[in-house]
Amino acid sequence: MSYVLYYSPGAASMAVHWTLIEIGAPFEARLVDLDVGSNRDPEYLRLNPDGRVPTLIVDGHPIRESTALLMLLAERHPAAGLAPALGTPERAKWFELMIYLANTLLPAMRDLFYATKDGNPEGADAVKALATRRIEGAWSKLDLSLLGEEAYLVGKQRTTADFLAIMLMRWSRNMESPATNWPNIQRYIARNSTLPSFIELNKRENLTAWP
Amino acid sequence: MSYVLYYSPGAASMAVHWTLIEIGAPFEARLVDLDVGSNRDPEYLRLNPDGRVPTLIVDGHPIRESTALLMLLAERHPAAGLAPALGTPERAKWFELMIYLANTLLPAMRDLFYATKDGNPEGADAVKALATRRIEGAWSKLDLSLLGEEAYLVGKQRTTADFLAIMLMRWSRNMESPATNWPNIQRYIARNSTLPSFIELNKRENLTAWP
Repeated sequence: MSYVLYYSPGAASMAVHWTLIEIGAPFEARLVDLDVGSNRDPEYLRLNPDGRVPTLIVDGHPIRESTALLMLLAERHPAAGLAPALGTPERAKWFELMIYLANTLLPAMRDLFYATKDGNPEGADAVKALATRRIEGAWSKLDLSLLGEEAYLVGKQRTTADFLAIMLMRWSRNMESPATNWPNIQRYIARNSTLPSFIELNKRENLTAWP
Repeated sequence: MSYVLYYSPGAASMAVHWTLIEIGAPFEARLVDLDVGSNRDPEYLRLNPDGRVPTLIVDGHPIRESTALLMLLAERHPAAGLAPALGTPERAKWFELMIYLANTLLPAMRDLFYATKDGNPEGADAVKALATRRIEGAWSKLDLSLLGEEAYLVGKQRTTADFLAIMLMRWSRNMESPATNWPNIQRYIARNSTLPSFIELNKRENLTAWP
């Protein structure tokens, strides 16, 4: 199994990068610097026609969508234990939660950061207002499920859902109400941010300290 | 394996209902009539706190999110062949496409139908305009991948991605540019709408004829 990850520091590639480090699978990381527009290079657009990160080359094939990549990596590396076992009730909740994050928080974050670029700039404030309401609603919902000292998002096991959620929580850090305003989420982030793979990720992507 | 599906005709439960019929697994279907607000009944809200359909009771546990349920059912019933085999390049594309539909088309459809309810009614037009642009962009993208007489969304095999996509295409039928305006999509829908499980689904949900 061979992997090449195209990433930009702190972007949607971050959860995939983290997962690859956690799994311990060999991979090559290639920087696509969004700040200088490297994602619009013709060579990159051949791999990812929308010019987004991440792209993960999986056995020679370019695959997109961070949530999809996390699920795929969990499936291909069962020994890493990043998804519940097949047939268990937790397995069903893992699917539910991965999709909830993918179709609620991820698109709302897209709206928040790209409303002006994706749509008519005159309507951007309305789009961002609805996105903010949805993001805050999602934190309230996730916060409720994170009661307890050992809580993960799915059952009693760390899964890809935690990596995806913590990336999204980090993205809220400059919002008026960042995810860390919710007390159970704050404790959950603090607990997970001491994970060696998270520390290593921060070093490799040279991320600003958070939380 | 036992299943109870809570559904409303033509709603997001439709793709799950279709998949259950196609798989041939025994299940009980219970109507949640959105038109009369049955989704706000306290009994239903205990299963699905947001009052949405579908909910699928899987071995006694309520699971939400149509995309998640399709992936879960494909995994639990491998003999139905609704997802590519593990380890194949098509498997990775299946994950990518399921997530693409879940985080692009599904939230844009939510915006289109619920902008006034979810957000400030004054901003609804701006939200719907961006949603429409994104939906039409998605049809153009999917249309390109549906060249050829035998084309499915993932490789040469019918998968849950087709069931999810065709449900979303049906939702566009009253838009100014419905998905059927795209020629490859139109042929793809026509081809798949003769599937016995689709005909049976239409009968059981008493759906208006489409396409």
